[in-house]
Amino acid sequence: MTTTRHACLERDARDPLAPLRDAFALPEGMIYLDGNSLGARPRAALERANQVVAEEWGNGLIGSWNEAGWRALPERLGNQLARLIGADDDEVVITDTTSINLFKVLVAALRVQAERDPSRKVIVTERSNFPTDIYMVEGLADLLQQGYSLRLVDRPEAFPAAIGSDTAVALITQVNYKTGYLYDMQALTAHAHECGALTIWDLCHSAGAVPIDLKAANADYAIGCTYKYLNGGPGSPAFVWVAPALRELVWQPLSGWWGHARQFGMETRYEPAPGIGRYLCGTQPITSLAMIECGLEIFARTDMQALRAKSLALTDLFIERVQARCGQHPLELVTPLEHARRGSHVSFEHPEGYAVIQALIERGVVGDYREPRIMRFGFTPLYTRFVDVWDAAETLGEILDNETWRQERFMTRKQVT
Amino acid sequence: MTTTRHACLERDARDPLAPLRDAFALPEGMIYLDGNSLGARPRAALERANQVVAEEWGNGLIGSWNEAGWRALPERLGNQLARLIGADDDEVVITDTTSINLFKVLVAALRVQAERDPSRKVIVTERSNFPTDIYMVEGLADLLQQGYSLRLVDRPEAFPAAIGSDTAVALITQVNYKTGYLYDMQALTAHAHECGALTIWDLCHSAGAVPIDLKAANADYAIGCTYKYLNGGPGSPAFVWVAPALRELVWQPLSGWWGHARQFGMETRYEPAPGIGRYLCGTQPITSLAMIECGLEIFARTDMQALRAKSLALTDLFIERVQARCGQHPLELVTPLEHARRGSHVSFEHPEGYAVIQALIERGVVGDYREPRIMRFGFTPLYTRFVDVWDAAETLGEILDNETWRQERFMTRKQVT
Repeated sequence: MTTTRHACLERDARDPLAPLRDAFALPEGMIYLDGNSLGARPRAALERANQVVAEEWGNGLIGSWNEAGWRALPERLGNQLARLIGADDDEVVITDTTSINLFKVLVAALRVQAERDPSRKVIVTERSNFPTDIYMVEGLADLLQQGYSLRLVDRPEAFPAAIGSDTAVALITQVNYKTGYLYDMQALTAHAHECGALTIWDLCHSAGAVPIDLKAANADYAIGCTYKYLNGGPGSPAFVWVAPALRELVWQPLSGWWGHARQFGMETRYEPAPGIGRYLCGTQPITSLAMIECGLEIFARTDMQALRAKSLALTDLFIERVQARCGQHPLELVTPLEHARRGSHVSFEHPEGYAVIQALIERGVVGDYREPRIMRFGFTPLYTRFVDVWDAAETLGEILDNETWRQERFMTRKQVT
Repeated sequence: MTTTRHACLERDARDPLAPLRDAFALPEGMIYLDGNSLGARPRAALERANQVVAEEWGNGLIGSWNEAGWRALPERLGNQLARLIGADDDEVVITDTTSINLFKVLVAALRVQAERDPSRKVIVTERSNFPTDIYMVEGLADLLQQGYSLRLVDRPEAFPAAIGSDTAVALITQVNYKTGYLYDMQALTAHAHECGALTIWDLCHSAGAVPIDLKAANADYAIGCTYKYLNGGPGSPAFVWVAPALRELVWQPLSGWWGHARQFGMETRYEPAPGIGRYLCGTQPITSLAMIECGLEIFARTDMQALRAKSLALTDLFIERVQARCGQHPLELVTPLEHARRGSHVSFEHPEGYAVIQALIERGVVGDYREPRIMRFGFTPLYTRFVDVWDAAETLGEILDNETWRQERFMTRKQVT
């Protein structure tokens, strides 16, 4: 299939999601393909920040915990997010960070397994999982000194076979941050359950990017961040979901006063709240938390099926254009071609990946780089246009043809989260 | 000693700290005596929030992690805060919540003790400590299942004797959130060390309120929040300090990627960063974090000795005026009269404390209520005036004389953090 820039403009003109781009404040002249790392700013977020800081904090002061609804934000925003991941009302809270929430659900899952079958001591995850997931397991295993260990899987296809009778938990990041590989949540959960393992799904690179149905998949625990495809703002708090059947079985150990059954009872014994509220711990950063709503409200104007269809069209087009325009260069696609296995970002390896990404950024095409050699390009159907995809591939082609990247090669490496 | 409202106005006119009040946006007509719960808004915070949201997020996007200095915020703001608590550069980070940071240092302290004397299994703290401190110890003890237990002290005077040869850690909130009792950090730390115990100081109600010298006191660990006397904004992230001699001895178990020696090495084994950076875990809420600087910059225009002198003058005046104006009512002062034992808030018990506080708030005097029966009034020398103290005591007297609180008595209790 061949296409033209003009055909891309026509696709944008026909795109039913195109009007949603206006909900975002995007810098003039930039093609932003890094929404998989930090989502763009919803226009409404500026007004919301002003409202929180000037009115709610400045004028409402302490009264705003009740009157401006600050206290209920983790649950209220959790309900708005729930519909994007196949959870029901009162099943999700937005709080803390992905790493901290992982610690909570990991302990919970291990406690459930310790009751069911204490011989299960293995946590299975991908070797190429985002490092914090691996580090948090290490930190917990080292803390407990109860013989827990990690089993690191080298290829996604090898994941099912790595879950066995010794496995307590399968910790799966649904979309791999490097390759964009998308796991089949329903199939892998079913397989894990057959093996007697519980599943923790890290949705950092899939929430807001692909349709997710935690309940239909019979998943056990899920965590994820809100600042990538959900456009919550830099470092906005993360979310946590626990299957209702598991939720009240155990405590999570970060048992701060926000998770207490009677937060203001000022008691001297901890008693976890019923429901997902027991996954709260301390006081949350309200300004950063409140802005998450602005991103979630944009999702309420569409649905994940429409977003998924456009996401696949965008990533198909990018793969096709890069292969057509840059085929003579040493680029290797590391993202699956199969739709069912692809998230919403596309990665290519290039021997000079870091320098090439820097050259692209210099020319206004913002992707990012991940060790080793991986150039990542994220496609956010809410604001990425087909013509952006065309132009990005063209710019990449020019940089590779002209070896523009050579001048970036010896710059100090800067890294972003 | 008797005084007059006019004399209070004269004291304000002479007060060298009075000009700092202009750095805050305070609601017209409100006497805000709850800065010990949520500090008032520095005027500069609104502009800073706008800058972060509109410019740094909106235009800088992912590049702002480096170019706007987001990555370095935990350390950079930690350095600004360090001078207020007697710590040196590169010893403090601002991150996560007080509860989460307590978990980190608690595990660290127990690990150090496990090496030194594994028979020490007791954590000593006040029964009337802020509940989250107690709950976090419970959560950890329950997680470890290694025989750790809490010893709850009923009176501050009994704290030293409660530390013994079985004590691993003394967890002391320097200023009690209910009574305003101020512990002697130097003396209690020295005593704990003589007993072989380590100290964790919770500075939530003392940082920015009383002079603190962690290094001179030879303290071991300190944590605290930034949204009370430090005026960082609602739920702004908390801080953590560890004595350099203890810092590298052990891991803390919330070992997320931000605490790794090479954050972007994307390695599969955790290696803690040298220095206080190992107490970082996940990505921080940048908008809420960045505003903390606006509060800290106001402190840079004065010093803790000047603030302490005014704080004591304000609390002295309030105690004197309430006793003079409301002496016939059933009010009981629960805050120490002795300067060396008093923080920057004053608490009275009243049988109808909740209703009285509601009546005060209705009349624009904002204090708060804590179970059971405690009315709290916080005095922030950066923006509280002597005339505010006079007027607050007068209003309290009128409410008690007229039993205005009776109409508030049957309202639903609302609580604030």
